[in-house]
Amino acid sequence: MDKRIIVCGYGNVGGNLIKLIKDKHAEIHEQYNINLILSGVIGSRGCIFEYNGLNLDMLLECTTGSEGLIEYGEKNIDSFYNYSIYEGDIFVDCTPSDVNGGVGLEHTINAINFGMDIVLLSKGAMVSNFSLIMKKVKEKDVNIKYSGATAAALPTMDIGYYSLAGCKINSIKGILNGTTNYILSKMHQSDISFSEALLEAQRKGIAEKEPKLDIEGIDSATKILILANSLMNSEYRISDINIKGIEDIKKEDIKRAKNKNAKIKLLAHAYRDNDKVSIEVKPMEVYPNDILSCVEDTNKGVVFSTDTMGEIYVLGGASNPLGAAAAGLKDIINLSR
Amino acid sequence: MDKRIIVCGYGNVGGNLIKLIKDKHAEIHEQYNINLILSGVIGSRGCIFEYNGLNLDMLLECTTGSEGLIEYGEKNIDSFYNYSIYEGDIFVDCTPSDVNGGVGLEHTINAINFGMDIVLLSKGAMVSNFSLIMKKVKEKDVNIKYSGATAAALPTMDIGYYSLAGCKINSIKGILNGTTNYILSKMHQSDISFSEALLEAQRKGIAEKEPKLDIEGIDSATKILILANSLMNSEYRISDINIKGIEDIKKEDIKRAKNKNAKIKLLAHAYRDNDKVSIEVKPMEVYPNDILSCVEDTNKGVVFSTDTMGEIYVLGGASNPLGAAAAGLKDIINLSR
Repeated sequence: MDKRIIVCGYGNVGGNLIKLIKDKHAEIHEQYNINLILSGVIGSRGCIFEYNGLNLDMLLECTTGSEGLIEYGEKNIDSFYNYSIYEGDIFVDCTPSDVNGGVGLEHTINAINFGMDIVLLSKGAMVSNFSLIMKKVKEKDVNIKYSGATAAALPTMDIGYYSLAGCKINSIKGILNGTTNYILSKMHQSDISFSEALLEAQRKGIAEKEPKLDIEGIDSATKILILANSLMNSEYRISDINIKGIEDIKKEDIKRAKNKNAKIKLLAHAYRDNDKVSIEVKPMEVYPNDILSCVEDTNKGVVFSTDTMGEIYVLGGASNPLGAAAAGLKDIINLSR
Repeated sequence: MDKRIIVCGYGNVGGNLIKLIKDKHAEIHEQYNINLILSGVIGSRGCIFEYNGLNLDMLLECTTGSEGLIEYGEKNIDSFYNYSIYEGDIFVDCTPSDVNGGVGLEHTINAINFGMDIVLLSKGAMVSNFSLIMKKVKEKDVNIKYSGATAAALPTMDIGYYSLAGCKINSIKGILNGTTNYILSKMHQSDISFSEALLEAQRKGIAEKEPKLDIEGIDSATKILILANSLMNSEYRISDINIKGIEDIKKEDIKRAKNKNAKIKLLAHAYRDNDKVSIEVKPMEVYPNDILSCVEDTNKGVVFSTDTMGEIYVLGGASNPLGAAAAGLKDIINLSR
């Protein structure tokens, strides 16, 4: 079965996804009977589109980013458009996440209106307008998956949607941000201050130059928000969540935790309380009998508490653009089966 | 959408599944638009069947096991048959697992021949005749799920099938048997011998009176076999696997491991070696930097190593008949979506 893909956003994640579509084409055709065709790539400065498939070898030889799309367009003059084309089966949003929605939201709504199925690797659309997107998806009778917006290679939405089908999820608790977990791990392991650990993370390319979204807990909050709204039927917005980041954690706090044999972790927690769902994000002491205490460095982990299946922990998953792209490919396959 | 269910085997797991079908009926109808109808229950001494649904209140008031089916039949004389009826949408095998196939295999093949979709909570059919079952399922164009045969409430098949779609799985390694993990945990925690720990496990109802299948590693081997055949395209039989159980583990072995800060765990491991898949089950020393060392008592856990998503750990899941029944219900829902 042919599946025509439009990738929106040609950064690191989008580039990795296109490489995977090329490298794994034969394998996916054989195993899933899905013939993946990359019909278009939408960038910030124009769009390249060929209904029956772009030349992937040529595209991947061009430079990266929007420059690359222009370069491809120079070689294939009929393939370049200075407007966005939403003609295909599956639209994949790989634009940078913007908690206010941003371009990702706009493109996603356009693609839904054109009747495309949706795969989100970016959080913008869901975190800013969860209910609207779900309403439009239903109206237009299209399908949506967004593993990439909820910890990517670490399966969280899948677990809730497939593995816990028929369960009541009473709580979702997790370490959902790799950067803050790295900083807290280093503070614990090397007795260094928050600023020293942040600097080290920035030097290693783990933390961004402008690390606000991570260290203030906002990235963690966006993920737990989307999970809770999807799996626990809440209807929260980011402004409803009590968020405390790790920027005020002192060496003494770590020392105090250590003396109790605990580690400080930034926990994102959604839980039922008399049928009302509450969500909070804050640094907490985690003790060795909690498996989340095993989640170190840039790793992530989450535990689901259910009525009939007990507690299920999921940990790990590559925290990098390839892992995110692979999560997108997985969603494409699961939508197409 | 109506889904008529035939449950085969009315022991502890089958009974729990029927109770879930009753208790969660409204919830599942609302959330998934699936109207679950229990049309029949096949026991070892006859079958009760009503196409438009058995009276679940009445059935659950009867005694448990095959006696209960006879009791129901006495109250509903037209519903009792002394042969098995395979008329419905989904056949669920809850018979006791038999590594040679046993009645579970026979019933499963009959149900496939009648064109029913299949949910296996029992391992017999898959461990004895994996390739045959898969061939017949394809021939008859029916669907199959078998979470219950591969660690039940701990999602293993789901992870491989859904969450790792598009990945190459290079290795699956796990603690797949709760009884042996309990025994090894107690030997480690309390410095007791294998026989003492086994006795304690038997007293608590964790180990069976005849614990051979667990302690000799056969139960672990059946699970890794089914996972590897399903997710790594191997075609092994149980007799092909190198299996070593825990019955020879001495207090000194535990002490030696402890001195190295390690724990002994019964590991089931399938891995690629130059594109050939190897499988082995044996007790191994596990070190604190391996998250599997956090899996204690009757808990289970598994780690998947992949080409694009890194390593993904899944731990926990209720190790009891309710957990197994819930895994069956999940498979029923996922087959019906």
